[in-house]
Amino acid sequence: MQKRFLITPGPTPVPPEVLSALAEPVVHHRAPRFTEILKQVVAGMKYIYQTENDIMAWAASGTGAMEAAVINVVNPGDHVLVASVGNFGERWKKLTATWGAEVTALDYEWGTKADPADIEKALAADPQITAVFVQHSETSTGVVNDIKAIGEIVARTDAILVVDAISGLGASDLKTDEWKVDVCVAGSQKALMVPPGLAYAAVSDKAWKVIERNTQPRFYFDMVAMRKKMTGDSAQTPYTPAVNLMVAQNAAIELIKDEGLENVFERHRVLGKAAREGVKALGLELFAVEDPEANSVTAVKVPEGVDGTKIGKIARDKYGVWLAGGQGQVKGKIFRFGHCGYFGHSDIVVGLSTMEMVLAELGFDVAWGASVGAAEQVFMNSPVML
Amino acid sequence: MQKRFLITPGPTPVPPEVLSALAEPVVHHRAPRFTEILKQVVAGMKYIYQTENDIMAWAASGTGAMEAAVINVVNPGDHVLVASVGNFGERWKKLTATWGAEVTALDYEWGTKADPADIEKALAADPQITAVFVQHSETSTGVVNDIKAIGEIVARTDAILVVDAISGLGASDLKTDEWKVDVCVAGSQKALMVPPGLAYAAVSDKAWKVIERNTQPRFYFDMVAMRKKMTGDSAQTPYTPAVNLMVAQNAAIELIKDEGLENVFERHRVLGKAAREGVKALGLELFAVEDPEANSVTAVKVPEGVDGTKIGKIARDKYGVWLAGGQGQVKGKIFRFGHCGYFGHSDIVVGLSTMEMVLAELGFDVAWGASVGAAEQVFMNSPVML
Repeated sequence: MQKRFLITPGPTPVPPEVLSALAEPVVHHRAPRFTEILKQVVAGMKYIYQTENDIMAWAASGTGAMEAAVINVVNPGDHVLVASVGNFGERWKKLTATWGAEVTALDYEWGTKADPADIEKALAADPQITAVFVQHSETSTGVVNDIKAIGEIVARTDAILVVDAISGLGASDLKTDEWKVDVCVAGSQKALMVPPGLAYAAVSDKAWKVIERNTQPRFYFDMVAMRKKMTGDSAQTPYTPAVNLMVAQNAAIELIKDEGLENVFERHRVLGKAAREGVKALGLELFAVEDPEANSVTAVKVPEGVDGTKIGKIARDKYGVWLAGGQGQVKGKIFRFGHCGYFGHSDIVVGLSTMEMVLAELGFDVAWGASVGAAEQVFMNSPVML
Repeated sequence: MQKRFLITPGPTPVPPEVLSALAEPVVHHRAPRFTEILKQVVAGMKYIYQTENDIMAWAASGTGAMEAAVINVVNPGDHVLVASVGNFGERWKKLTATWGAEVTALDYEWGTKADPADIEKALAADPQITAVFVQHSETSTGVVNDIKAIGEIVARTDAILVVDAISGLGASDLKTDEWKVDVCVAGSQKALMVPPGLAYAAVSDKAWKVIERNTQPRFYFDMVAMRKKMTGDSAQTPYTPAVNLMVAQNAAIELIKDEGLENVFERHRVLGKAAREGVKALGLELFAVEDPEANSVTAVKVPEGVDGTKIGKIARDKYGVWLAGGQGQVKGKIFRFGHCGYFGHSDIVVGLSTMEMVLAELGFDVAWGASVGAAEQVFMNSPVML
């Protein structure tokens, strides 16, 4: 018997209220009761997205929503720009190439942010670019891009801005409308506090014009069909939705509304700061550029002399704690704490404490308790409940 | 939104597998299916009690089982001996007096153990004593009495030994048969890992002889009626049992059997040791005599200059962590960590970390992280999963 802690950036822990909702008897998806649930989820997602745009909701994981964005806005031969700051930036490149786009890539060193000025230059250099793809929070490094600045730049062109906010939405501020994000994709299993299986997109009027002209073959992820079906008094989804996950999402939305979006962001800010202070107090280096808005993930460089591939395994097998390893080019070189969603001071403390024990086992000279002590001093001064 | 941690010696956290079982559809208590469940619970409780004695099970809290023990073995005017080392020793005194016993009390300073030699002397001094009442783990102080030694002494007389093992059963070793415990009471909400509402007793042949002669008026708690009804192929309980709690108890028993009783005790030993090392590393004093078998509760003296009545409130309101305060004569003077039942390294770390933050807020000069660091060094060397 061992308690399990998911201190990963997805899936994330799910609140008991949401787990209870998930266990409610199945509602038929063609019944009026489901229409009500769907409307509530859409209204709640608009609150979290800070948008009046249309909300799409699929039974899919986040990658499904990313692909949905691509096949609805990219035509074969379209010029697109991808600003890649990590593994999920690479996914935008693969997805857009898969669907026939001519991809211009702005590749940044992992751990750094996309520079909005580069995007401005690239758009000026190729006026045929129809869409810009970027991450809000790059889950693989913890970096949060400056979507506000990028949105302003893209909005001055005919191109649309497609943002992957899968690990960022509901953790770091993201004003979809004010920041002019045209297609913003999300997944249930991060700060939305629901198990994996729901994918979302918020779609602007500017995006709809592109989507309506799009010629890609598409069916399940067709946004036009989904908008049509999701509109009106008897709104439904075109194909069978993940009903219980939607009911659970509704419960999670209630929790987010009760806490208040600003408090949710502030809680995440405090947790992110505590994680970073904890890591530094142990003499470890943060992998990413330090950013007070990097609220979802903290990436840590594996210290010299430590076998980074063993960290996750020991944490999991010996202590029941799931930390995330490095992905792609930083596999074995970093490890990551997730703290987007249903996280509190206890998770950070358990994560840091486990890190101390695991690193000590792997030969690192640990200042016992130092990381937890540093985090505690951040928690003590939190302006919000943790 | 705030995660809640019960780091109290009851109620204790309940494993997800047990919560799921609790939510199963209600079984009718006069159906064969319930007979099966009851038999499984009885067999499981015999494993945990390490006994072949009869098992009684009531819908009641632990105090119900204590009263059941008293009204079944004590006649008005009987001489009884109570060895009291804390608040629940006081309860034995109140209960036996309520039911008309002439009570001889051995009162020990809270935080110390009962001395078996005193019990031997008291029994010799008054051969009319029919029963000896004592705690296994005294929940109010964390002390674990030497039941083995006491059992040997009482077994040499005609008196029976009645042990309150409510917070100790399943956390510290207790060999009911080998140690000659005649009536041993327990409650579901401690190391048995079920919410409050079930109370148990294991009753020896020596005790049955006393119980069968007993003249107290009794109905709900009548052990003779319960034994009769709980015997045989169509065993049931005389009155409506707490069906879902029984189903949950069955699930908890499976977890305990899977882990293995010796591993369960060892896990508790490690957690207890880690809690004590953590407390000492912060320069705090343990309230009770230090004991490697004090696996259920760690009591800590409130340091000078700190308002002990505020510790629990700040821990709960600001951090969502329930610690226990002092009871009776030590109210405001101690606070307690519970670690009996579904506890792991994470709970001790969260409890100690919360203690650091709360004491700092109350003016104590905290060596940040020191308690957690000390606990980590105990966890790292654990021979069992935590």
